[in-house]
Amino acid sequence: MFKLFWAPRSCALASHIALEEVGAEYLTQRVDFVAEEQRSPAYLAINPKGRVPSLVTDRGILVETPAILAFVAQSFPEANLAPLNDPFAFAQAQAFNSYLCSTLHVAHAHRLRPNGWADDQAAMAEMRRRVPESVGACFEHIENDLLNSPWVMGESYTICDPYLFTVAQWIEADGIDPTRFPKVKEHRHRMSERRAVQTAMAAEL
Amino acid sequence: MFKLFWAPRSCALASHIALEEVGAEYLTQRVDFVAEEQRSPAYLAINPKGRVPSLVTDRGILVETPAILAFVAQSFPEANLAPLNDPFAFAQAQAFNSYLCSTLHVAHAHRLRPNGWADDQAAMAEMRRRVPESVGACFEHIENDLLNSPWVMGESYTICDPYLFTVAQWIEADGIDPTRFPKVKEHRHRMSERRAVQTAMAAEL
Repeated sequence: MFKLFWAPRSCALASHIALEEVGAEYLTQRVDFVAEEQRSPAYLAINPKGRVPSLVTDRGILVETPAILAFVAQSFPEANLAPLNDPFAFAQAQAFNSYLCSTLHVAHAHRLRPNGWADDQAAMAEMRRRVPESVGACFEHIENDLLNSPWVMGESYTICDPYLFTVAQWIEADGIDPTRFPKVKEHRHRMSERRAVQTAMAAEL
Repeated sequence: MFKLFWAPRSCALASHIALEEVGAEYLTQRVDFVAEEQRSPAYLAINPKGRVPSLVTDRGILVETPAILAFVAQSFPEANLAPLNDPFAFAQAQAFNSYLCSTLHVAHAHRLRPNGWADDQAAMAEMRRRVPESVGACFEHIENDLLNSPWVMGESYTICDPYLFTVAQWIEADGIDPTRFPKVKEHRHRMSERRAVQTAMAAEL
């Protein structure tokens, strides 16, 4: 039995969807970011970084979305969520997820937590102002260079798909016109028709 | 035969060390960031992001350090660079590498390329000013919560070790006192005694 710590509109949704896709037994627990629960001693004991997702397993706690996604795929090989026996194809999937976490998510985070990289109010305002451009450039790269059809990696649905769907949920709030990226938009629609996605989304409401 | 595109003092060093550790056959090609070669059409055809590392393989090109490191470990299982058959332990290693790439490297990048997140000069100066604090906080988390001995994951040398060694090379230039982190310092020293590290470092000079 797993337990997933999550927060609304966070990247934890990707892990939530993946757990649903494989039919894992799991509980979820919401971390209230508005009440700064992520900075409480109780939560910091689970994840000293004060971030989500955290996945409690019977072996210990896992953090970081790309690591959790690969873990879910490897723990449920019959669900075929990653090309586990093909190091090159697995690396391609991991490279995609690494890009989302280290470039796209970071660009997005400059709107919500610019205080991670500056103290000055004017600097933080400038960082927020640039978000539509920086995040937009990431989606441009995804649209033009990375995203296959019907799924990110092509014919096979993988751990890249819940992650892309998750970060694509932020497009409008980041001030980006979603019609600029028709392939991403189509992917979002295709994802929204999956039962696992609907279940995870409903649980977050 | 692989070909690794790298730049001095970049995170490509981690992949370079890993290729040495496993005894892979590979060539290296330096990308001249001073001459902005990473923005040349020739290099953008290899990596549209204009970043290093890029690893050319006979199947295609791989990017993103965590993905390349896992690829090297999986392609040379006899080198034991990752707990490949233990999804939980593999996820722990991947979580460490994901943290380096999405949090520590990003904090560091606010000194070298703040223009990724702002246009205003004063905002960029403020981001540079905060780097010692932000990157220092990352090394504090590594020192206190993540780094085992003698290696990151404990008894086994893994793909986490070249990556930590690589980002730890930036400590002084990021304005951080290395004596604050004795375990990281000891890890750097231990790494510097490995033949693979010496070979990769020498090739970068």
